[in-house]
Amino acid sequence: MPTPRLLVTVERPLLQRISTPKSRVRLASLAESVTFSDGDRAWDAADVGERIGGVTAVLASWGSCTYHEQVLDAAPDLEIICYAAGTIRSVTPPVVFERGVRVTHAADFIALGVAEHTLAVVLGVLRRTGDFDAAMRAGRWRDIGPVVDRELYGKRYGIIGASKVGRRLIPLLRPFEVEIVVADPYLTESDAQKLGVDKLELPDLMRTSDVISIHAPVLPATCHMIDAQMLALIKDNAVLVNNARSALIDTDALVAELAKERFDCALDVFDQEPLPPDHPLLGMRRVLLSPHVAGLTPERRSRLTDAMLDELERHANGRPLRHEVTIDQLDSMA
Amino acid sequence: MPTPRLLVTVERPLLQRISTPKSRVRLASLAESVTFSDGDRAWDAADVGERIGGVTAVLASWGSCTYHEQVLDAAPDLEIICYAAGTIRSVTPPVVFERGVRVTHAADFIALGVAEHTLAVVLGVLRRTGDFDAAMRAGRWRDIGPVVDRELYGKRYGIIGASKVGRRLIPLLRPFEVEIVVADPYLTESDAQKLGVDKLELPDLMRTSDVISIHAPVLPATCHMIDAQMLALIKDNAVLVNNARSALIDTDALVAELAKERFDCALDVFDQEPLPPDHPLLGMRRVLLSPHVAGLTPERRSRLTDAMLDELERHANGRPLRHEVTIDQLDSMA
Repeated sequence: MPTPRLLVTVERPLLQRISTPKSRVRLASLAESVTFSDGDRAWDAADVGERIGGVTAVLASWGSCTYHEQVLDAAPDLEIICYAAGTIRSVTPPVVFERGVRVTHAADFIALGVAEHTLAVVLGVLRRTGDFDAAMRAGRWRDIGPVVDRELYGKRYGIIGASKVGRRLIPLLRPFEVEIVVADPYLTESDAQKLGVDKLELPDLMRTSDVISIHAPVLPATCHMIDAQMLALIKDNAVLVNNARSALIDTDALVAELAKERFDCALDVFDQEPLPPDHPLLGMRRVLLSPHVAGLTPERRSRLTDAMLDELERHANGRPLRHEVTIDQLDSMA
Repeated sequence: MPTPRLLVTVERPLLQRISTPKSRVRLASLAESVTFSDGDRAWDAADVGERIGGVTAVLASWGSCTYHEQVLDAAPDLEIICYAAGTIRSVTPPVVFERGVRVTHAADFIALGVAEHTLAVVLGVLRRTGDFDAAMRAGRWRDIGPVVDRELYGKRYGIIGASKVGRRLIPLLRPFEVEIVVADPYLTESDAQKLGVDKLELPDLMRTSDVISIHAPVLPATCHMIDAQMLALIKDNAVLVNNARSALIDTDALVAELAKERFDCALDVFDQEPLPPDHPLLGMRRVLLSPHVAGLTPERRSRLTDAMLDELERHANGRPLRHEVTIDQLDSMA
């Protein structure tokens, strides 16, 4: 492929956050021509349609328009859409793939951050790092109340969803000699074996795991999959982590169960974000809250553009993409 | 060796904490005869001297007497001292080894807990889990001030001391694709290569690492090894962890350096414990405090006796010990 003619549909303020000065120079040097969205919002379908004639590559991110037929009709030369973000289903409908446009995205790059965040909250909650610090500053040396510090070593760890995040998490857990069980209807027994995990039905995972973390996409089948019944199965003093999507858990049922203070919970995602100031979660014990930051620290966010330029470079040089999305994957994908 | 005749020098209240009901049954069943300290303090040298005649094995722990010549003179049948704790130098002077008494201890078992705690505080501090939770509960969604969340992935990690803890930490760090550098005068280049780490001089480690954790024993050469000069070398926004011994760092110099809020620090050990209520550390930002709990969660502590009974069983069955201490190791050991 000749040097790409690139359309950057990302608004300036967002581009600043998902790139470094160095990667913006690289962006300009990589393409024959680059057209930028220079406003303070991402270009919509009409904006893109007007500018995409002759363009061979698109760099998009959060707020991107959907590449439906009308947009694609205006883009006869389009070869690749590089999506510098994770959740891609609404951006690239099947028609994109049918027209032979390649699609790549940063989901796996973001997954590394989510996996790290998962281990951070699991270890912090188990070892009571926050409770111990608060107790000492309040003049109590070791008295953190009835919920004592526990370990990850040798425990049973339940992963819900053998997604990119779930798979990235496994090697981080391995050195702790945990027994890893995974619930995922798409995971075959032979894949489970390759991953070195045991496949379990969801209720069995909920009932028997010391730590449970959710890494599933939101699909009709997974919406509110963790309901009151599932929550009731969780062992006393277990840890439940959701840094995927809030729709995976029935929040009302979760709040009711957490009020019992039977187990610990770390939540990064909420039905409404920012979490409303009167939300009951904000006053709860045994709950560690974070404001939807699991995937992207500022430093990782600033490297998103580079991750996509790596892909664009591979495409331009005829090498295989690392994170190409295929039409078969769309159904089970976030 | 015939069934051990065992002397348990640990006071009852401590024995309750370092064993489970199951391990106390095992203890009784493993030995031909067991003599317990039934008071509320560990037996001292005189107590032990009176009771050690005919004894082949000792189970000791924190507060143990020193096994000097006089005690050993009264113990002609003594074959093994099982020390259900870590720091053993003051308990078993060279004469113990010279008399052919074997020594084993739980340092490696405890090291697993310390290594886990190290990663817990490193990830928690980097990802700002405490700051985010506090901000949300205070009605601020993502505003945690100027110190933003960072990652462990891909960073340079400096380990001071290739001790049991230092070595246990390496596999926990490996999946984060960090570059691991180690400062330890006892570490040979070939050992460093086997561990997959780069050996560095301490000042170079301090100057270049994004995360630094200290896992050295207190020896004349290591006391206050981290002084004002070393602290000044630490990079802005790095993380310094000490869950080994407070004497390794000059606390006054540390407090002065931390007051600049240049980098983060997690401390588990203090010159005086409990930390006095007016100590400046208690009011400092960018500091995560814990009350000397890195090595032993209640669950790990309760398995200490079992760890030593495993060793006793190996000894009784003529199998190699897993954690035997040799006289050569004493000098470089905690």
